[in-house]
Amino acid sequence: MLKEPFTLKLSGHLFDNDNLLPSYVNLIHEFWKNGYKMVVVTGGGSLARRYIELGRRMNANEAMLDLLGISVSRLNAQLLAAALSDIAYITIPTNLDEVFRAWLTGKLVITGGFQPGQSTATVALLVSEFLGIKKMIDCANVDAVYTSDPRIDPNAKRLSKVSIAELKDMLKSKTVAGTYDLLDPWALGIAQRSGITIFVVGCNKPETLRRLMINGISEGTIITP
Amino acid sequence: MLKEPFTLKLSGHLFDNDNLLPSYVNLIHEFWKNGYKMVVVTGGGSLARRYIELGRRMNANEAMLDLLGISVSRLNAQLLAAALSDIAYITIPTNLDEVFRAWLTGKLVITGGFQPGQSTATVALLVSEFLGIKKMIDCANVDAVYTSDPRIDPNAKRLSKVSIAELKDMLKSKTVAGTYDLLDPWALGIAQRSGITIFVVGCNKPETLRRLMINGISEGTIITP
Amino acid sequence: MLKEPFTLKLSGHLFDNDNLLPSYVNLIHEFWKNGYKMVVVTGGGSLARRYIELGRRMNANEAMLDLLGISVSRLNAQLLAAALSDIAYITIPTNLDEVFRAWLTGKLVITGGFQPGQSTATVALLVSEFLGIKKMIDCANVDAVYTSDPRIDPNAKRLSKVSIAELKDMLKSKTVAGTYDLLDPWALGIAQRSGITIFVVGCNKPETLRRLMINGISEGTIITP
Amino acid sequence: MLKEPFTLKLSGHLFDNDNLLPSYVNLIHEFWKNGYKMVVVTGGGSLARRYIELGRRMNANEAMLDLLGISVSRLNAQLLAAALSDIAYITIPTNLDEVFRAWLTGKLVITGGFQPGQSTATVALLVSEFLGIKKMIDCANVDAVYTSDPRIDPNAKRLSKVSIAELKDMLKSKTVAGTYDLLDPWALGIAQRSGITIFVVGCNKPETLRRLMINGISEGTIITP
Amino acid sequence: MLKEPFTLKLSGHLFDNDNLLPSYVNLIHEFWKNGYKMVVVTGGGSLARRYIELGRRMNANEAMLDLLGISVSRLNAQLLAAALSDIAYITIPTNLDEVFRAWLTGKLVITGGFQPGQSTATVALLVSEFLGIKKMIDCANVDAVYTSDPRIDPNAKRLSKVSIAELKDMLKSKTVAGTYDLLDPWALGIAQRSGITIFVVGCNKPETLRRLMINGISEGTIITP
Amino acid sequence: MLKEPFTLKLSGHLFDNDNLLPSYVNLIHEFWKNGYKMVVVTGGGSLARRYIELGRRMNANEAMLDLLGISVSRLNAQLLAAALSDIAYITIPTNLDEVFRAWLTGKLVITGGFQPGQSTATVALLVSEFLGIKKMIDCANVDAVYTSDPRIDPNAKRLSKVSIAELKDMLKSKTVAGTYDLLDPWALGIAQRSGITIFVVGCNKPETLRRLMINGISEGTIITP
Ligand SMILES: Nc1ncnc2c1ncn2[C@@H]1O[C@H](COP(=O)(O)OP(=O)(O)OP(=O)(O)O)[C@@H](O)[C@H]1O
Ligand SMILES: Nc1ncnc2c1ncn2[C@@H]1O[C@H](COP(=O)(O)OP(=O)(O)OP(=O)(O)O)[C@@H](O)[C@H]1O
Ligand SMILES: Nc1ncnc2c1ncn2[C@@H]1O[C@H](COP(=O)(O)OP(=O)(O)OP(=O)(O)O)[C@@H](O)[C@H]1O
Ligand SMILES: Nc1ncnc2c1ncn2[C@@H]1O[C@H](COP(=O)(O)OP(=O)(O)OP(=O)(O)O)[C@@H](O)[C@H]1O
Ligand SMILES: Nc1ncnc2c1ncn2[C@@H]1O[C@H](COP(=O)(O)OP(=O)(O)OP(=O)(O)O)[C@@H](O)[C@H]1O
Ligand SMILES: [Co+2]
Ligand SMILES: [Co+2]
Ligand SMILES: [Co+2]
Ligand SMILES: [Co+2]
Ligand SMILES: [Co+2]
Ligand SMILES: [Co+2]
Ligand SMILES: [Mg+2]
Ligand SMILES: [Mg+2]
Repeated sequence: MLKEPFTLKLSGHLFDNDNLLPSYVNLIHEFWKNGYKMVVVTGGGSLARRYIELGRRMNANEAMLDLLGISVSRLNAQLLAAALSDIAYITIPTNLDEVFRAWLTGKLVITGGFQPGQSTATVALLVSEFLGIKKMIDCANVDAVYTSDPRIDPNAKRLSKVSIAELKDMLKSKTVAGTYDLLDPWALGIAQRSGITIFVVGCNKPETLRRLMINGISEGTIITP
Repeated sequence: MLKEPFTLKLSGHLFDNDNLLPSYVNLIHEFWKNGYKMVVVTGGGSLARRYIELGRRMNANEAMLDLLGISVSRLNAQLLAAALSDIAYITIPTNLDEVFRAWLTGKLVITGGFQPGQSTATVALLVSEFLGIKKMIDCANVDAVYTSDPRIDPNAKRLSKVSIAELKDMLKSKTVAGTYDLLDPWALGIAQRSGITIFVVGCNKPETLRRLMINGISEGTIITP
Repeated sequence: MLKEPFTLKLSGHLFDNDNLLPSYVNLIHEFWKNGYKMVVVTGGGSLARRYIELGRRMNANEAMLDLLGISVSRLNAQLLAAALSDIAYITIPTNLDEVFRAWLTGKLVITGGFQPGQSTATVALLVSEFLGIKKMIDCANVDAVYTSDPRIDPNAKRLSKVSIAELKDMLKSKTVAGTYDLLDPWALGIAQRSGITIFVVGCNKPETLRRLMINGISEGTIITP
Repeated sequence: MLKEPFTLKLSGHLFDNDNLLPSYVNLIHEFWKNGYKMVVVTGGGSLARRYIELGRRMNANEAMLDLLGISVSRLNAQLLAAALSDIAYITIPTNLDEVFRAWLTGKLVITGGFQPGQSTATVALLVSEFLGIKKMIDCANVDAVYTSDPRIDPNAKRLSKVSIAELKDMLKSKTVAGTYDLLDPWALGIAQRSGITIFVVGCNKPETLRRLMINGISEGTIITP
Repeated sequence: MLKEPFTLKLSGHLFDNDNLLPSYVNLIHEFWKNGYKMVVVTGGGSLARRYIELGRRMNANEAMLDLLGISVSRLNAQLLAAALSDIAYITIPTNLDEVFRAWLTGKLVITGGFQPGQSTATVALLVSEFLGIKKMIDCANVDAVYTSDPRIDPNAKRLSKVSIAELKDMLKSKTVAGTYDLLDPWALGIAQRSGITIFVVGCNKPETLRRLMINGISEGTIITP
Repeated sequence: MLKEPFTLKLSGHLFDNDNLLPSYVNLIHEFWKNGYKMVVVTGGGSLARRYIELGRRMNANEAMLDLLGISVSRLNAQLLAAALSDIAYITIPTNLDEVFRAWLTGKLVITGGFQPGQSTATVALLVSEFLGIKKMIDCANVDAVYTSDPRIDPNAKRLSKVSIAELKDMLKSKTVAGTYDLLDPWALGIAQRSGITIFVVGCNKPETLRRLMINGISEGTIITP
């Protein structure tokens, strides 16, 4: 089903887990060899949070803290590229132009954050739009979209399908460094204006991603533009 | 009052008006010579709208249309730099790193848009945050912030002072190329997290800007973080 | 006949005309899909003249005025790339190195001006020489080369074929920003030393270009090296 | 004594320690404000080792593993720059040219690794040589140079002063990623040919560095060219 | 007299002569220390001719041959920068933007050629125009401008003063790589449109340059715009 | 035998010899057309030594002298690219990232030196490692590796096969600009850690290289990792 190109946003939390990461690397390698075309965007995870916290304790301002999160996300992208160096574009692109140039080489492009005030989910959607890609898979630190943050609100309800318009009403924008929500309004706006479908799946079990890629079975949430 | 550095966002509409522009150029020149420190961000105006419309008629996608708007805003920045070449940084920066490097030379930095999906007002706030600047003047195509768009809603009420939190509730996010509102949620989020005060003034009379810069008299709207 | 690669210089005046431009876009798209290989160079047109005039009124120097013309030519290149984004290299190259890199990707390369004191016709010939291309089509704001400027001199004679040596004697060099002649001595010098044939055709009727590309029928002027 | 410029190599292990780091940040800030001129080079520490180990488990080659170490050292440099943003050059330079440009701005330059197969100590010496700096302080994860690695060899003898020629005979070169010795032959060769004195001090107590900088008292090892 | 900034074009032939070069280096160093502001542009000389000849024998095209000449001129610029590293900008700029950035640092900027089809004299004039510099000294392989090439035509007459308009009529444009004349039409066009005065002096005796710089005494030719 | 990719380091001395160079150019052209994949790295030769000597006489420091050597090696690379422009990547890469990008285009990549303190042999090995290439041919100014420098020591013994470990014991590191040995410890360390075999052959007779490439017959020295 996903033989058309897609972007794959990997939660930074994957990089906290030394055992989970290799299975995702294998999955990406296998699918790439089978002809799937994708751009991977990596998050910052708890390492980003540690550096941001350290920076905050030393009075760094918000832009600087975001730069730290971006640096960690790029480090994660570099790790992925190192593990996939036979198929990957080794130099991590840092903006849309560089992604475009990397994409034209036919290599697997892996990127992290771009600039302060912008989540890596937004990066994944900007890349999708720029390259004309219509599907984005968000492999997140949560197994689906809920009506509110399930880690905070015990009454949060799981959604299997939701439109962007509906979702925008539910989510509130937060832009304090390191605490961006699952999907911010800017990310959703890009998806909406360019007709990109977002598939949110959990990043704890590679099999969930496998089933989505092979059979198109969503076990998380489908967000329709 | 504004002897501390500020960012100045000039509405693209200034560049539609061959007579108004020179008076703003003189104003900036005079203030710079008097020791005011600022970064100028130029919008795209009706020329941006023309190119975006042309692109849309030829089926360009949203990212491409935004690139057109960005190109026009940079053209406007280049015009300003040409007219101020004795004090300005001639090469128009295209991202935060380049703005930072230009800023360190002590020259007047003039920039346009940065990347798709991002208004020039957001650029002005990202630049402010990155450089540690706490005031942003938005010289806009409207004389103040209203409770809703005054060009559409005849009942819109003029605001002389409003907090970002209040404003966020009033404004709705739109991300169709070329039709960003006065200030989008992302711009407001940056201002909020970094404590930046925004002064919205109209761009039809240079005297309004002069009075704000010299006496700190706001004839438009003060948006407090 | 033109299945070997060529450069195509499009007069900036094409971009003044909202109706003509789409037909050229379609023509380029169709030919590219049919296997024609080309690099497109766009001029600045009347928009360049407007910005240059504005700059001059604000006392900008000649180098700055040329930068404005270059910025407009790049904006036009960006518009063309936006309309042809399925086949084009999106990032507009700004020098020969970047054109070379873009060319190697196999995408349609579209560029504008390069540096002050240099016409876009010269850019087209430098690109031709650098890439080893032997034919350049100049889609101009005049339907052929005349013995003098036909817009000024009513006795100007139309030439259907002329050698560069002969032409050099006729044309005088002018380097005031925005008023470069059809082909300046530098452009002709490049064509001469590298054996590049120039086809001048008018840009008012796309059919003229079509007949030249398909049948090799020149309805304008052939300039032989 | 050290009012002439110096380079300061900070062991990556400083960044493993959330309490030690802020005191070094304060020290650097204080000295900079007092007119000391320096370039800081940060190592990768145990975080570099973790990413390199992860990469190795996923079969990344040596060049890729070095890139991971470099990325971590740059992340550490970014953290330092964030904590010192009022005096530091924010964009982390990645080669000698960029260091040179940053140095000319008069800002505190902070950098990490440059390229595979090269320790950050070598970076510090290349930077010293390029900028004509004659003193390099190596704030290391060991309190002095020993006749062999003191963590392995219990009979290693502490050296308070040693010439590069003598040291070269003692140390053996290792180039497996992440396990470079205190100072490799290449680093020593640069110091030797350009007459740079190296001061090795431990990074566990900021006071050691303070005493060296203020009174010129070396509590570690002086390596003479 | 020349305390206002000027550009200094040094003939590539200076670099053929191991004894002459150091005296020019000393002269430039002395004048810089005395507050003269200048940008130096170096030619390619006989080394350029050797590489171009070698390339031609191996069938390189004209653009490639020009790239060789540019590479040699940059090598010469690098040698000068090496000998003047306490005052010079070390990284050789390769286009106007880079010259501008280097110029803003206050260092002595040294550059070579920019792009194919362009003499280093033209580079010197483009740089002058871009930076608003009104005087250009051409330290040439001939002691003055003659009515025709004095190495070919024994009847050539020496000119002590000539206007650009007069000169243009005398000189013919040649654009075969490595054989550009003293001043090509493009170079003269830039000087003319921007009102730059050119002083041609011989490069065989440093004293000629010294007298020009100190007393304003021209022993060669003054070309007035 | 060498149908797998290899790096080819050409001694700078090849470029001193106007007759030898074209035969190597033909050899590379022929092999490339026959499907051999390689990256070529050029040395500086006696021209590098001349510029370094000139620089030293004018008191340039070691880093600056190395930059001169690097500039000459790049000039040589440019000459080779000019002579092979139908198959070569024209823009000479200056670091590993640029080599990687050039490599992905499928063109013949030619490069020179990268940074001060680093031989072009080390460049060839860094490139090999980065691209996963396992064979490096060093076409040197000596016909084989000897137990010591044969130009100095008449008792030096020729080696037909030697391991890196054995060689490291024999060779001493020297890092004075322009006098790097055949292979320095850093180069050998890279080869060792990444399992790269080095073939040293003389550069006086192209036939030696031909026989190595076609039949795998080493007439010089094989250095095993
Ligand atoms: N309505 C919601 N539905 C689901 N998750 C939500 C919601 N609101 C907030 N969240 C939070 O969003 C996060 C989504 O995980 P994500 O993979 O983006 O992790 P992250 O910590 O932001 O990592 P990264 O470093 O990749 O940005 C979860 O921590 C989840 O608690
Ligand atoms: N609540 C509101 N209060 C004031 N203006 C509003 C409001 N909502 C929308 N607007 C619109 O925002 C615009 C603000 O002017 P601005 O200078 O940003 O113009 P622009 O057309 O976006 O130009 P630019 O090219 O600089 O982006 C006006 O066109 C105004 O009608
Ligand atoms: N002869 C020696 N004398 C002192 N230390 C030595 C010697 N040989 C090896 N070492 C080792 O060199 C290291 C020097 O510490 P350094 O600060 O460079 O740490 P590092 O782990 O390399 O960190 P970085 O990430 O900054 O490169 C110590 O781990 C020490 O055990
Ligand atoms: N009318 C003329 N008057 C003077 N010189 C002329 C004239 N026409 C041609 N020339 C030639 O122009 C050259 C001017 O010297 P210049 O210093 O520019 O040398 P070059 O060989 O071009 O060096 P570079 O490598 O710096 O370009 C001389 O070789 C001279 O013979
Ligand atoms: N043990 C050794 N065996 C062989 N050659 C040696 C040895 N030690 C030193 N050499 C010297 O190493 C050099 C190897 O030649 P190479 O091709 O690297 O020349 P080069 O002059 O360094 O040129 P390049 O400019 O390419 O670096 C010879 O000059 C040779 O005398
Ligand atoms: Co693989
Ligand atoms: Co002025
Ligand atoms: Co199409
Ligand atoms: Co501080
Ligand atoms: Co000096
Ligand atoms: Co060929
Ligand atoms: Mg997230
Ligand atoms: Mg050598």
